Amino acid sequence: MDYQAVLEEVAAYARPYAGQGQVADYIPALERVAADRFGIAVADINGEVYGVGDWETPFSVQSISKTFSLALVMAHSGTTEDIWSRVGREPSGTPFNSLVQLEWENGIPRNPFINSGALVVTDRLQTLTGDASTTMLHFLREESGNPDLAFDQAVAGSEAEHGDRNTALGYFMSSFGNLENPVPSVIEHYFWQCSIEMSCRDLAAAGGFLARHGLRADGSRLLEAREAKRINAVMLTCGTYDAAGEFAYRVGLPAKSGVGGGIIAVVPGRCTLCVWSPGLDARGNSVAGAAALDHFTTLTGWSVF
Amino acid sequence: MDYQAVLEEVAAYARPYAGQGQVADYIPALERVAADRFGIAVADINGEVYGVGDWETPFSVQSISKTFSLALVMAHSGTTEDIWSRVGREPSGTPFNSLVQLEWENGIPRNPFINSGALVVTDRLQTLTGDASTTMLHFLREESGNPDLAFDQAVAGSEAEHGDRNTALGYFMSSFGNLENPVPSVIEHYFWQCSIEMSCRDLAAAGGFLARHGLRADGSRLLEAREAKRINAVMLTCGTYDAAGEFAYRVGLPAKSGVGGGIIAVVPGRCTLCVWSPGLDARGNSVAGAAALDHFTTLTGWSVF
Amino acid sequence: MDYQAVLEEVAAYARPYAGQGQVADYIPALERVAADRFGIAVADINGEVYGVGDWETPFSVQSISKTFSLALVMAHSGTTEDIWSRVGREPSGTPFNSLVQLEWENGIPRNPFINSGALVVTDRLQTLTGDASTTMLHFLREESGNPDLAFDQAVAGSEAEHGDRNTALGYFMSSFGNLENPVPSVIEHYFWQCSIEMSCRDLAAAGGFLARHGLRADGSRLLEAREAKRINAVMLTCGTYDAAGEFAYRVGLPAKSGVGGGIIAVVPGRCTLCVWSPGLDARGNSVAGAAALDHFTTLTGWSVF
Amino acid sequence: MDYQAVLEEVAAYARPYAGQGQVADYIPALERVAADRFGIAVADINGEVYGVGDWETPFSVQSISKTFSLALVMAHSGTTEDIWSRVGREPSGTPFNSLVQLEWENGIPRNPFINSGALVVTDRLQTLTGDASTTMLHFLREESGNPDLAFDQAVAGSEAEHGDRNTALGYFMSSFGNLENPVPSVIEHYFWQCSIEMSCRDLAAAGGFLARHGLRADGSRLLEAREAKRINAVMLTCGTYDAAGEFAYRVGLPAKSGVGGGIIAVVPGRCTLCVWSPGLDARGNSVAGAAALDHFTTLTGWSVF
Repeated sequence: MDYQAVLEEVAAYARPYAGQGQVADYIPALERVAADRFGIAVADINGEVYGVGDWETPFSVQSISKTFSLALVMAHSGTTEDIWSRVGREPSGTPFNSLVQLEWENGIPRNPFINSGALVVTDRLQTLTGDASTTMLHFLREESGNPDLAFDQAVAGSEAEHGDRNTALGYFMSSFGNLENPVPSVIEHYFWQCSIEMSCRDLAAAGGFLARHGLRADGSRLLEAREAKRINAVMLTCGTYDAAGEFAYRVGLPAKSGVGGGIIAVVPGRCTLCVWSPGLDARGNSVAGAAALDHFTTLTGWSVF
Repeated sequence: MDYQAVLEEVAAYARPYAGQGQVADYIPALERVAADRFGIAVADINGEVYGVGDWETPFSVQSISKTFSLALVMAHSGTTEDIWSRVGREPSGTPFNSLVQLEWENGIPRNPFINSGALVVTDRLQTLTGDASTTMLHFLREESGNPDLAFDQAVAGSEAEHGDRNTALGYFMSSFGNLENPVPSVIEHYFWQCSIEMSCRDLAAAGGFLARHGLRADGSRLLEAREAKRINAVMLTCGTYDAAGEFAYRVGLPAKSGVGGGIIAVVPGRCTLCVWSPGLDARGNSVAGAAALDHFTTLTGWSVF
Repeated sequence: MDYQAVLEEVAAYARPYAGQGQVADYIPALERVAADRFGIAVADINGEVYGVGDWETPFSVQSISKTFSLALVMAHSGTTEDIWSRVGREPSGTPFNSLVQLEWENGIPRNPFINSGALVVTDRLQTLTGDASTTMLHFLREESGNPDLAFDQAVAGSEAEHGDRNTALGYFMSSFGNLENPVPSVIEHYFWQCSIEMSCRDLAAAGGFLARHGLRADGSRLLEAREAKRINAVMLTCGTYDAAGEFAYRVGLPAKSGVGGGIIAVVPGRCTLCVWSPGLDARGNSVAGAAALDHFTTLTGWSVF
Repeated sequence: MDYQAVLEEVAAYARPYAGQGQVADYIPALERVAADRFGIAVADINGEVYGVGDWETPFSVQSISKTFSLALVMAHSGTTEDIWSRVGREPSGTPFNSLVQLEWENGIPRNPFINSGALVVTDRLQTLTGDASTTMLHFLREESGNPDLAFDQAVAGSEAEHGDRNTALGYFMSSFGNLENPVPSVIEHYFWQCSIEMSCRDLAAAGGFLARHGLRADGSRLLEAREAKRINAVMLTCGTYDAAGEFAYRVGLPAKSGVGGGIIAVVPGRCTLCVWSPGLDARGNSVAGAAALDHFTTLTGWSVF
């Protein structure tokens, strides 16, 4: 596969969509990014990375970090799988910050990719490692090969200032006994994780273990093949907020999006992609990013279906 | 792949689960089936069918018919895709017969595999063909190569007698203007479709077009490859009631289950499976059937992820 | 109390509100009424009736009939009170035609004044009397002293044509086993009851038993004092759709409204009022009617609080 | 009316119910109270107080404080009534600590007597007075004539330790912009208010202004008559959690209950009652307290209906 040629064709197709949709504006630090930026990168399973457009420009990973925190909890838990008694694996069927389903289901979030579920995962990672956000940062540096990755203090601080909804989720789950650490500490680590700045290049590389059935960039094993497949399954059914069904239908690849405008996607056994364009549709997914992935699978025929 | 050997190993693994769970008891005709029956069949993409156990025993297809009615609507609609303005493609996040989400979303069902969505699809098929249930029966006879397939009048009649919930769904959607035909007629065709009796052999063969990217048993085209993939995507995200995430996680294949105890599953490009065992778990999926598919993907490594 | 003078002052205050709001338009027969009609009547406990404006013009009683069907079920049940195992007495907290709460609470409607609850009451009255709608019509003729009261066939037929939502409610409750009679029969009686045409004069007189602690116009006992008080309690907490709290706050009297624009209200031990003006607010209550009752209690000081 | 004789008859009737139900056990300080305590007091509008049983034993007022914080906000707001843009007046139709309705209604609680609504009221009182809990304590001392009333530090501290659900409510409303003060401060004042210890005697006397149409114990005006009636209306429709309809039906008086086992009730123009017995029914209302009020209205005929 000539990835470079495919990416150029994909970019030509998707760039007209860049600028459509709305840039996330709930915190000032995100709002300032130009809506029409566009970049895409592919990392093949040998670690070669190809890219087009703004593929080396860092952006805020936001909810894409949820994929990595889940993987790290699974890696640190060994074979116990105890996280799944505290968070489900089912699509939520309601907007991503909903407390409704959480109340119906006694404080057990539906899946690890809605905010409540990610708080539970972060809480578990905190218990397992003693420092959830630093553990993730170090992991991302190693897998991306980029030692300069860092938290964005302005973004994390701004999230905290506007974080009442997530704080409410934390206390609500705590009232059901579903957090092990103090709520403010869990919230803080969660915001630090979301604030990490990475480029499409960095993210495609860092997500390589998902295409390599659990092997890290250096060939060592992070997860069993079975576990890596399971993360892909959760990405496909729950990775794009309340549009997971639509995404599976159009794109047909496991994917996880963030309100920073990034989306990572996995072609198991072949490659990991990352696309970035800040304009979001009504459900919080990058408009041009979704168009790009749609066209990528059309060109390559690499849907999982 | 030596399908026969694999199926035998799968059956040895899954048979101890046969008899677990509850046989559907909301209508007498289903309740009478022994819970510990077990059969499994695979149809490869060349039409060869392999089977083990009770793989030639007919059972009530029930909700598995929803896969076929969706495919037939797509085939008869040509390129218009108009069905998707009347039914969504997102997992429902609530039990399969819930009216709650339907009320929130103004009579547009979340997806074609919950009962409300299937009624919309049947309604559309009725409009497109003039006789939704007969159209499906003829299609299933041709694809399975079994001219003896028939409606089970006792089951259809029994469903109608106990069909108040589905009738309520029909009138409720009608109140939002989302049915084209009279409610009683749509309900009737829906129950006839669900009542069709087929064996694992019949269903694996009839679902072959899903593994052949849209080609029928005789090589003619039912659906574009893109459309067949989309049905697989909907099966993976919505095909097993409120356990679709769990199913994707454990099995990793597009699948559709029915309360008769059958499940069909697709390995795109390779084969279509059907497994049957009447004991159901709390979410309505066959206990032994799910165990069998789980073991099948473990043995073959054929998850889509 | 000089009722005639009070009513004239009330009418002067409330008439400017006549014409505000929307006339119910879900059936043609209601839509045709001029929005700015206004009438008010008071029947004192001795049966004297006073009125102003369009107080002798018949209009469609609609949901006001729910008060009378509840009273008739209680009167025909004797001391058993068995109706309360099938319908609750709590405010609903959701719009009056909601299926959501009905699903949560297993087919038991929250109270007798939402549509689902009224269907249960009608169903019970049908069982107790053999002809629910005729029983009510005869009762209303006797209590109002107006032998010309009749069903409006056009309205009842039109309701049936647009009655999918109520039919859905009926089948939904039937699926929980909470209807004794066939759904279409219950729906039909319900629509006939709603279609009865009465004037403010008729309704104020017919509702006299609520102010007389259960005594009918002829002095015979319809209900025990305790039972009449209980109907007033249900009217106060549930009688004006999702605005019962607001109504209690502003008006402070037990009341029941209908989408025909009528409202009856009770001053226990003193009088029964009926006001009519077809323009409805967003919650389905007459705008000018609510203003009139508000001013009536201000002038007389006759809130129950 | 010979109040003393009535109370003795009421107590004889209700005492067998004392000990039924469950004592609130979510905080240790409440759990320790013997379930079978029973006291009742009546304060007539002249300030005479009568009592029977444990009517002089202090208990934790808990949610009964919500009545007083609402009255104090109305008294300090003058004629503006601005509180009603931030909290509704409708019954909630869901359990008292539900976040579901709060999410549906964009952070505006349904009424001031559910926890979320009481937090908004406390927040407003804090802004108006600078010290919500002390303002209330002083008011209660003056109205009850008992200068020894005090916060119970153990109860307030224990509430704070187990207060995650209320903290979640606070942050959730804050995320909608519906709190003016910092969440922890609002929560703290709320818990202090709930922790106040008062006897039936104290509470009947302190609630006298509700029966006197807004006049305080010293004859000065706290609220306009209209405003006092409105608080009574909110008590009747929303004062006993999800059992307000049932309470109106059985008792027919405005009332407010607390999980400490107390209930205050108002006979407008006549008297204010307080009954106490710690055993609660499933909806959080005192079993013996409800029985006592029921019998009181039966004996006196003083329902508002």
